[in-house]
Amino acid sequence: MEKGLLIVLSGPSGSGKGTVRAELMKKEHFAFSVSATTRGPREGERNDVDYHFITREAFEGKIQREEMLEYTTYNGNYYGTVKSEALEMIEAGKNLLLEIEVEGAMNVKRVYPEAVLIMLLPPSFAEQERRLRGRGTESDEIVNGRLARTYEEMEYLPHYDYVVYNENVDACAEDILSIIHAERCAMRRHPNAKEHYFGQ
Amino acid sequence: MEKGLLIVLSGPSGSGKGTVRAELMKKEHFAFSVSATTRGPREGERNDVDYHFITREAFEGKIQREEMLEYTTYNGNYYGTVKSEALEMIEAGKNLLLEIEVEGAMNVKRVYPEAVLIMLLPPSFAEQERRLRGRGTESDEIVNGRLARTYEEMEYLPHYDYVVYNENVDACAEDILSIIHAERCAMRRHPNAKEHYFGQ
Repeated sequence: MEKGLLIVLSGPSGSGKGTVRAELMKKEHFAFSVSATTRGPREGERNDVDYHFITREAFEGKIQREEMLEYTTYNGNYYGTVKSEALEMIEAGKNLLLEIEVEGAMNVKRVYPEAVLIMLLPPSFAEQERRLRGRGTESDEIVNGRLARTYEEMEYLPHYDYVVYNENVDACAEDILSIIHAERCAMRRHPNAKEHYFGQ
Repeated sequence: MEKGLLIVLSGPSGSGKGTVRAELMKKEHFAFSVSATTRGPREGERNDVDYHFITREAFEGKIQREEMLEYTTYNGNYYGTVKSEALEMIEAGKNLLLEIEVEGAMNVKRVYPEAVLIMLLPPSFAEQERRLRGRGTESDEIVNGRLARTYEEMEYLPHYDYVVYNENVDACAEDILSIIHAERCAMRRHPNAKEHYFGQ
């Protein structure tokens, strides 16, 4: 059984991560991993379906025992991917796609070095600024904050395996599907290729 | 100007290299490099079009000065690719595809480490044997020699970047086109991505 891939997709605000991800989902089947969170369930949310709703104590225990593949905090609550669940899917040959921030991506790489890290970028910083300001939905202060955050994010760029420039969503999705396809042929993923070839 | 790729395709007898290469040529444009040779021109062959016809002394001089990307001997004559010509095409953004033996591939990697080495294999050694014997055009002795040669060739497998199994030509060509596509997004091919992004 050939293992699946753990694909990590990151990108600054305005890179179009969400749109690209939706396009990828249309074109290829990815496994879906239920996130764990410490926030309470909202009306209609089911435990272990929408989220694994767990206590802060349980979540922090998982972090300490390196049982989280990645996690982040938002509005005072933890959100993250349980390592054992993700690896089970990968062992079963499924590809898992995680859309996460740079810090989380570094954690994934540390905990699971075989992960494939892809950074999605707008064609240029100037274009990113144009996109963010062009939306007209956020204040200048918020837009400036996001642009400043991009400088931080770009410091992590050398740790990524691939960089994809988002000129248009279709081309981007094709780039990423090619990366997934090619990675499955990478020699480092076939350490026993010789023995396997000779049927040993 | 983004550089092109130097793709090296190797594979044992019965791997279907020639057919896969022809299929690739149909689907994507590759630059074509005129080989140098020490054999004399045949009727109708033009110098610098079909081959660069050069003397043995000139060829061996090029080998000593590391001006050959790869070379081999056949029927007592040298055949090979002149490094400067190949690199000129790559610098101009073109992809160059070389179908060469494992020893030549190792030379390419040494002289031009950015080369992408792809090993094409039949699905298994048993299947390779079936294919070679099934042709019925060569003697048992020749087939046995080719199978024995495969053991030598497989020793080089760990030095290749990708392994592609030839179940069918179409799927193989798709694998290789994905590899080319993905390699162009590889972070190590974009060492100045950050500066470039910020327009510096």
